[in-house]
Amino acid sequence: MYKVNVGKKILSANEEYALKNSQLLAEQKKLCLNMISSPGSGKTTILTRTISELKDEITIGVIEGDIQTDLDAARIRATKAPAIQINTDGACHLSAAQISGALENLPVSDLDLIFIENVGNLVCPSAFELGENGKIVVLSVAEGDDKPAKYPVIFAKSKALLINKIDLLEVIGQVDFDIERVKADARKLNKNIEIFPISAKTGEGMTDWYDWLKKEVKKIRM
Amino acid sequence: MYKVNVGKKILSANEEYALKNSQLLAEQKKLCLNMISSPGSGKTTILTRTISELKDEITIGVIEGDIQTDLDAARIRATKAPAIQINTDGACHLSAAQISGALENLPVSDLDLIFIENVGNLVCPSAFELGENGKIVVLSVAEGDDKPAKYPVIFAKSKALLINKIDLLEVIGQVDFDIERVKADARKLNKNIEIFPISAKTGEGMTDWYDWLKKEVKKIRM
Repeated sequence: MYKVNVGKKILSANEEYALKNSQLLAEQKKLCLNMISSPGSGKTTILTRTISELKDEITIGVIEGDIQTDLDAARIRATKAPAIQINTDGACHLSAAQISGALENLPVSDLDLIFIENVGNLVCPSAFELGENGKIVVLSVAEGDDKPAKYPVIFAKSKALLINKIDLLEVIGQVDFDIERVKADARKLNKNIEIFPISAKTGEGMTDWYDWLKKEVKKIRM
Repeated sequence: MYKVNVGKKILSANEEYALKNSQLLAEQKKLCLNMISSPGSGKTTILTRTISELKDEITIGVIEGDIQTDLDAARIRATKAPAIQINTDGACHLSAAQISGALENLPVSDLDLIFIENVGNLVCPSAFELGENGKIVVLSVAEGDDKPAKYPVIFAKSKALLINKIDLLEVIGQVDFDIERVKADARKLNKNIEIFPISAKTGEGMTDWYDWLKKEVKKIRM
């Protein structure tokens, strides 16, 4: 007779690596946030400003995911923060195995917070757990206010929503981007989502985002 | 002895449907363009304006691909053009089988041009042939000028690049979006790509795009 072990869930290769990553992060009490958005929503600019403005309070490292080029890692390294570039070479998302390799090459014990900047794609990365503590979805106001309705999964799964490029709101106009609609649609999908309207270019709204990050880093350390 | 038919390429299910779609389009001499971009680059606005402004010269139908909602098909139908909404229910791209079904439900013989508006995603849809005559990539200036370098495949494969939202260029500034860099990077990947800087909101640059569409419709008919 065959014995089936019903107590053990069979994990996919990605889930195995995600579990390994989350165990490493938990042991070392490090916060790891997986940033997901469409291409060009401003993820790298948000990170460079956040790293620079928090440098005396939180030490940040970054894992950069891109299909091609190391343009983004170069922008992060210009802030003096450590950055590992992963080129997916065509693949539309980062995998937990790639993150596991990157974590081995980052000075994790010196860091408080590790950002993963995923491949620019509002769809596929939301389906792959990387072992992170939470997902951050970024939406630029130039993308339109119908995005939570049209791409619900990532809004449902994220700890926080950054509504970026609010400096463009005046030119785009409320007809084309109704920020209250975005907030309501996101909260319908995820009642606990934190929402920060920001401009990584002008700095508007960034303080609330920083306060939230400091609080989250503190929670992990306890 | 087994006989191997080396002359026949084994097609994937997607390629089989793509071939079937392209045969149908060729028999009926219809132009079919597959529009691909990040979420929020303005694909639907480009289509509604194009349909309205060309309505006396070209009859257009639309196949709308979205993960969720029929918001986009409703916007197309408001112009009186026929539109079929496909909900991929989580999938990150349209498949040729879905297009085959949609073509059966569109009044193809009455149309000159069928646009496929793919799921908002600059990565995955570029890998799936739908049987179309050509791909159109749309890039909004708000997404930044590094996108051809970072997402090269779709720029390499497209017949035309629409650089949309040029009405925002003045506020975004040349430092954040160098249009000459975009053109040069796109042409490095694809020396024959047609490039149209447009604003689907103000109408700027749309005439050149319309002239190109009329020329392409005429070519197919010959």
